Amino acid sequence: MGNTFGRLFSITTFGESHGKALGAVVDGCPAGLEIAEKAIQYQLDRRKPGQSKITTNRSEADTVQILSGVYEGRSLGTSIGMLIANQDARSASYKDMRDLYRPGHADYTYDARYGFRDWRGGGRASARETAARVAAGAIAGILIKELARIECLAWVEQIHKIKSDIELESVDATGVESNIVRCPDQTAAEKMIEAITQAKQKGNSLGGKIRFRIDNCPPGLGSPVFDKLTAEMAGGLMSIPATRSVAFGLGEAAIEMTGEEHNDPFVMDEQQRISTETNNAGGMLGGISNGQPIYGTVCFKPTATILRTQKSVSRQGENIEFKARGRHDPCVLPRAVPIVEAMLNLVLADHMLQFAIATTGRLKQIFEKG
Amino acid sequence: MGNTFGRLFSITTFGESHGKALGAVVDGCPAGLEIAEKAIQYQLDRRKPGQSKITTNRSEADTVQILSGVYEGRSLGTSIGMLIANQDARSASYKDMRDLYRPGHADYTYDARYGFRDWRGGGRASARETAARVAAGAIAGILIKELARIECLAWVEQIHKIKSDIELESVDATGVESNIVRCPDQTAAEKMIEAITQAKQKGNSLGGKIRFRIDNCPPGLGSPVFDKLTAEMAGGLMSIPATRSVAFGLGEAAIEMTGEEHNDPFVMDEQQRISTETNNAGGMLGGISNGQPIYGTVCFKPTATILRTQKSVSRQGENIEFKARGRHDPCVLPRAVPIVEAMLNLVLADHMLQFAIATTGRLKQIFEKG
Amino acid sequence: MGNTFGRLFSITTFGESHGKALGAVVDGCPAGLEIAEKAIQYQLDRRKPGQSKITTNRSEADTVQILSGVYEGRSLGTSIGMLIANQDARSASYKDMRDLYRPGHADYTYDARYGFRDWRGGGRASARETAARVAAGAIAGILIKELARIECLAWVEQIHKIKSDIELESVDATGVESNIVRCPDQTAAEKMIEAITQAKQKGNSLGGKIRFRIDNCPPGLGSPVFDKLTAEMAGGLMSIPATRSVAFGLGEAAIEMTGEEHNDPFVMDEQQRISTETNNAGGMLGGISNGQPIYGTVCFKPTATILRTQKSVSRQGENIEFKARGRHDPCVLPRAVPIVEAMLNLVLADHMLQFAIATTGRLKQIFEKG
Amino acid sequence: MGNTFGRLFSITTFGESHGKALGAVVDGCPAGLEIAEKAIQYQLDRRKPGQSKITTNRSEADTVQILSGVYEGRSLGTSIGMLIANQDARSASYKDMRDLYRPGHADYTYDARYGFRDWRGGGRASARETAARVAAGAIAGILIKELARIECLAWVEQIHKIKSDIELESVDATGVESNIVRCPDQTAAEKMIEAITQAKQKGNSLGGKIRFRIDNCPPGLGSPVFDKLTAEMAGGLMSIPATRSVAFGLGEAAIEMTGEEHNDPFVMDEQQRISTETNNAGGMLGGISNGQPIYGTVCFKPTATILRTQKSVSRQGENIEFKARGRHDPCVLPRAVPIVEAMLNLVLADHMLQFAIATTGRLKQIFEKG
Repeated sequence: MGNTFGRLFSITTFGESHGKALGAVVDGCPAGLEIAEKAIQYQLDRRKPGQSKITTNRSEADTVQILSGVYEGRSLGTSIGMLIANQDARSASYKDMRDLYRPGHADYTYDARYGFRDWRGGGRASARETAARVAAGAIAGILIKELARIECLAWVEQIHKIKSDIELESVDATGVESNIVRCPDQTAAEKMIEAITQAKQKGNSLGGKIRFRIDNCPPGLGSPVFDKLTAEMAGGLMSIPATRSVAFGLGEAAIEMTGEEHNDPFVMDEQQRISTETNNAGGMLGGISNGQPIYGTVCFKPTATILRTQKSVSRQGENIEFKARGRHDPCVLPRAVPIVEAMLNLVLADHMLQFAIATTGRLKQIFEKG
Repeated sequence: MGNTFGRLFSITTFGESHGKALGAVVDGCPAGLEIAEKAIQYQLDRRKPGQSKITTNRSEADTVQILSGVYEGRSLGTSIGMLIANQDARSASYKDMRDLYRPGHADYTYDARYGFRDWRGGGRASARETAARVAAGAIAGILIKELARIECLAWVEQIHKIKSDIELESVDATGVESNIVRCPDQTAAEKMIEAITQAKQKGNSLGGKIRFRIDNCPPGLGSPVFDKLTAEMAGGLMSIPATRSVAFGLGEAAIEMTGEEHNDPFVMDEQQRISTETNNAGGMLGGISNGQPIYGTVCFKPTATILRTQKSVSRQGENIEFKARGRHDPCVLPRAVPIVEAMLNLVLADHMLQFAIATTGRLKQIFEKG
Repeated sequence: MGNTFGRLFSITTFGESHGKALGAVVDGCPAGLEIAEKAIQYQLDRRKPGQSKITTNRSEADTVQILSGVYEGRSLGTSIGMLIANQDARSASYKDMRDLYRPGHADYTYDARYGFRDWRGGGRASARETAARVAAGAIAGILIKELARIECLAWVEQIHKIKSDIELESVDATGVESNIVRCPDQTAAEKMIEAITQAKQKGNSLGGKIRFRIDNCPPGLGSPVFDKLTAEMAGGLMSIPATRSVAFGLGEAAIEMTGEEHNDPFVMDEQQRISTETNNAGGMLGGISNGQPIYGTVCFKPTATILRTQKSVSRQGENIEFKARGRHDPCVLPRAVPIVEAMLNLVLADHMLQFAIATTGRLKQIFEKG
Repeated sequence: MGNTFGRLFSITTFGESHGKALGAVVDGCPAGLEIAEKAIQYQLDRRKPGQSKITTNRSEADTVQILSGVYEGRSLGTSIGMLIANQDARSASYKDMRDLYRPGHADYTYDARYGFRDWRGGGRASARETAARVAAGAIAGILIKELARIECLAWVEQIHKIKSDIELESVDATGVESNIVRCPDQTAAEKMIEAITQAKQKGNSLGGKIRFRIDNCPPGLGSPVFDKLTAEMAGGLMSIPATRSVAFGLGEAAIEMTGEEHNDPFVMDEQQRISTETNNAGGMLGGISNGQPIYGTVCFKPTATILRTQKSVSRQGENIEFKARGRHDPCVLPRAVPIVEAMLNLVLADHMLQFAIATTGRLKQIFEKG
C-alpha cells in the first residue's frame, strides 16, 4: 500500500536504492499519445546522480527501458511498464550502519513499521525511488502539453540563507537549466553553488526552497471537496523525500493581508476571457484552477546524511556515536527540480481526465461523434 | 469524484450550503467501537456558526443524526450514515450575485468546471461542507484514542499580524477552549478578538495560522512512498477551504539550518524507548511517525467575502462593481480549529488500519487467536 | 469498507433493514444531467415491498428524498445524497431469533466478521439495502440513456422448475411489467405466480433465473485486463443478495460447442457498421463491448427465510430447533428485476466515463473546444 | 485504468504478448513473509506454454525475476516488482491479420476502445498477460497459507461434452497434477486429452469447465455490501480471458430446490465449532465465508483462434475470408487451472487483510502489544 499515485492517470512504482532495478507502471494514459523514449530520458538525466560537482558521486546512467504499453511510438492505452536498472550500488559502505539508526533518516521508522528493512543505501526510503516518478511524470508532461499546452516549470529559489531575486513570470526553462544549481538568478546561483561546495567539503548539508509555475492550465481543474487541485498537489509534493512545507500563491504571506487586499478582482482580458487583475491566489480558487498561472513553493530540509560524527542509538537500544559513509548529495535541491515538475505533471494529467468527464455536455461531444 | 477521503477508514460527504442537508458516510470504521452521539455533537458545536460574536450570524443547530452503522451505541462495522439538516439558509441575499463572480470565491471556477452551479450560499464550495468532515472526524478521533490514546490538538497561533507566544508542549484543550478565538495565549487572544471585531465592523476580513500537535502517535504510521503520513496530512489539510500552506516540524525555518543542526539525534529515553533529543522533524521521518509528538501549521487566507464594493465580472463577461450581502465569518480561524483536528483524526485512523496490516507478524496475532 | 461501488461514477450506500433510513451518495455523476425525482421513484416502486400478493407484506413507501447534488432539476457535478426512510420495521418478530443463527442467512457470518450484529430484520445483510442501489442505479440509467440511448432490461426467465419460452430480442419493458412476477411469457408467468403463491402458503420459498439484455451499448466499453465489462458486471451482479451464478452470452452452453461453432463471424451490416452474424458472445469480446446486444443471466437461490421448523445453533453453541417469524418474500425474483438493472446501469455509467478518457483523440475534442 | 486488482493486497500488471516483457507489481504484501522465487516459478511453470502436447507450441521459459520488495528471502512491505521476459514471440505470423478482425478475439473491440492496437500475438488481449497474475497470485498463495493454512485448488471438470465424475472433497493437488489436462478423474482425463488432440488436428478448439475448492478459509471474510467474497471472486474470475460464467455452491442447480431443501442447517461439529450439515451454499453466506469449504465453477469458451477458414471484416470495412496462422492452445483449460487459483489467492489475501481490521477488538490486539 502506498506505492500508487493518481486515480485516472495513475502510477505504481517499485524499487530499492541498491536492489536490481526501479520501475514504474503508468495506467490510464490515453491511447494514441506520441511518447518518445528520449523525452523521458531527458527528464531522468536532469535528475540523475553524478550530474555535477554539487551532487552525489554515485554514477548511474538511469537509462529508461519501456517494456510495454507503447507501440510504434504511441501509447496503446494499456499499462506502460518502465524499468531503470541500478548499476553503481556500493552496499559495503552501509554495512557498518545496518544496525543503527541514522538521524534524520527513515531507518528507525521503517523498522518500526515493517519490522526489518533493506539497509543498503536506504532501501526504498532512498530518494533514488524518485527516478521512477520522474519517468512517469515525463509521460504525464507530454500528455498535458499535447492536450492543452500546459507546462510545469520549477526552479531553485533559495539555498540555505541565499535567496534569489527574480520575477515569477520571467523564469523559463533555459534560465533554469543554465547552471548546475537550477536557479535562474545567475548571481544567486553562483553563491548557492559555492555554499553547497563548502558544505560538501565540511561533510555538512543544506536545504532550500523550490518555486514552481504552471502555465496554460485551463480553468476548471480540481475535484472538490477532497481532491482539490491544491490538495492533490500538496499531497503529491509532500510525498517527495525531505519536503517540509508546501504553499500556494502568496503562501504564509497571505496571512498578513486583509480580504480586501488579498482578493483578486476579476476582469475581462484583451481576448475577452475572464481573468484577474492580480494573482495572489496562485491560479486556484476553491481548489480549482481559474486559468491564471498556478504557482507555489516547496521547502526541503538539509540532507539527512552528513559525514560528521553524530549521536544515535543502535537497533539493540544502546546509545552510540557513529560517522556515516556512503555517497550523498550535500543538497537535494538541484536534483529535486525535475521531481517537483514530475509530481505536478502527474496531478495535472489526472485532473485533465477528471475534468473531461465532469459534465454531461463534454461527454456528449464524445458519444455523439463516436 | 472528489467527495471521498481515506482508503481504509474513509468518508464520503455530500451537501450544499443552502440545500436540504449535509451528510457523511463513514466506511471502514471497525466494529465494536463505542460511539456516543454527544461526542460527535461536541465537535460540531465547536464548528457551528453563530457560536460567538466573531463568527457569522447564521444560526444552525447542526444537530447530527446517526442513521445507520451504530447499534446500541457501538459501531456495527457497516457504513455509518450521518445527517445534519440545514435550517437557517437565507438564499435571497445571494440572488443578486447569482450572475456574477465574487472575487476570491469559487463561483467562477465551479462554473468553469461544471457549467453551472448552486449559487445559494456558495453551494458545495461553502465551508459549510466541513460540518460533515467534523462529524466523521469525531468518530475517527474516538477510534484513535481508543486504540492508542492518540490526540490531535489544534489552536490559533496567529491572526493577521498578531502572533501568539506559547510553548508548543504546554498547550492543552482547556487552554484552547478558554476563549472564543481558540488561541491559548490569553493576551494575544484578546488582541485577536479585537482585530477580528474591527475587521467585521469595517466589512473586511482577516487570515491567520493554526498550529497543531498530535500526542501519543505510535511509531510506524505512514505508507511510503506516496501515502506518507506527511503527504496524507498535507493533502487532507489543504482540502480545507481557504488554506494556503501546510508545514511540518520547523517548516520553512528548516531551510536556514545545516543538516548537522537540523538532524534530531536518537537517544534512549528513561523508559528505554527510542526517542530523539530534539524534535525538529515534527515527529515524522521518511513520512512515517517516529513516536515523537507530531506538529505543524496550516495557514488560511483572509475570508473571501467582504462587505465592501469590489470589482468583478458577470457571467456574461461584463466588467462590473458590486457589494456582497450575506452572512459570513470575518475570520475563519476560530471555527477552523476543529476542522483541522478532524482532518488529522481521519488521516490517523486510516493509517492505524494500514499499520495493522503492514507485517505478517501483526496479522498472525489476529489469525492465530481467531 | 465494501460500501462503495464504481470508480468514476461511484455510489456509497448505508442503512440497516430496521434502522432509521437507507441512503446512497452518488459521486462522479457529470453535471448538467436532468434528474427527475419521479424517475428514481418509479424504479424504487418496482422494487418496493408489498407491491403484490407474491411479495413480502412489509409496507414501505420507499419515498426517495434528494438531499444534495441536484439543483433546479439538474445534477451539479457534486455528490448526490439520497435518503429513503424506514417506516414499517417490526423488530419484535426478530427478537426471539437474536441469539440464534438462521440457516441460509448471514447472521453467523456477520457475527464471525464483526463480533456482533444488528439482528433486527437482518440488519445490513437484509436485501432491503438494495433500495439504495436502485435509487442510485436509476440516476446511472438516466445518464447512459442520455449519452447513448443505452437501456438495460431484465426479466424473470425461470422460477423453480418453471421455464419461460420467449425470444431474447422480443422482450420489452411493457412485457416485463405486464404481470407481477415480471416474466414476459404470460403463460409461464401464470404458472410462476401460482408456484410462488403455493410456496408462500407452505411457508417455503423458491429461487429462479433472471435474464438481462442491454441495447445500444456502443463498442469499446470495458477496461482490460481486470476491469473488463464482463468482470465488473459479474462482480456487481454477484454482490446482490442471494445470487449464485452469473453468465454471459450462451453461458455454460458455450462449453459444448467448438470454436468454429461458437465464434461469431464479423460482417458489415446494412448501415455499413461492423456487426456479427451471430451473437453467441453476448455482446462482449475480450471483456469489451462490441456493439451487439449484451445479454446474460443471474441465478438466485430460494429465499433463506422459510416459515418452517429448522435445525440450527445458538450463539452460545447449542444445537436448537426454531421456526422463523417475520415478513419475507417467498421468492425474491420479481423484486430483483430492477436491482439487476440498477447494477448493470451503474457498471455501464462508470464505463462510459472510462471510455471517454481512453484515447488522446477523444480528449482533444474536449480541450480544443474548451 | 483497469490494470490493478485488489484494494489492500493489490497487483498492477503490464505487458503485451509480443512486447519486451510482462510484469507485476504487488503492493500491500505485509512485511516479513518468506517468499521463495522457486515457489513462484512453480506456478508459472504450471501455466507456461509448450508444457505438453495439448498446449500451444510457443516456447517460453517464463522465468520470473524479483526486482524489488524482497530482501534476504523476506518481503520488505514495500512494493514487489516482478519481471517475465518474452523470448519466443513470432510476430510475422500475425502480420497478415493486422488489418482484419479475428472472430471471437478482442481485435475489433480494442480498436473500438483505443483507436489502434498492438496486433502482434493479440497484444495486451492475449492470455499471455495472465503470467503476471500467476506470479502475483503465487505470493498471495504463500501469504494465505502462512496466515491460516488456506489453500485454493482448481481442476478441470469438463472438456466439451466429456464430464468427469469425482467427489468434490476427494480432489487433491497430486491428483490434479497427475495428467496433462489437470483433471483428477483419470478415465475422463484420457478422453479429454484425446478430444483436445483431435480438435488440434482439425484446427478446431474446445471449451470446458473448471471447478475449484478452497480449504481452511476462516469464517468472516468478505466486505458487504459490494465487496462480498462472492462478488470479488466472481469479478476476479470473470476477468480471466475466455470466461463465460461463474457459479458458487450448487450454482444454477440451486434454482430447482426449495428453501427448505437448499438451506444448510447449522450444527455444532465435533470440535464444538459452528458448522453446517450440508454445504449447498459453497462456504459463503451473505457473501461472507462461513468456515465451510468454498467451492464453485468457471466456464471457458472454446479458444477463439482456430486454424480454419473464417468469415470476417477488415479494418477498412470489407467482408473477407481468412485463415489464421500463429501458435495457439486448442483448449485453454489445462493452463487456466493455475490462473483460477491465482485469482482466488489474490481475492483471499486481500480479504484476510480486510478482515484483520474489521473490529476494534482485533486492532487492540495489535496496538496493545506494539
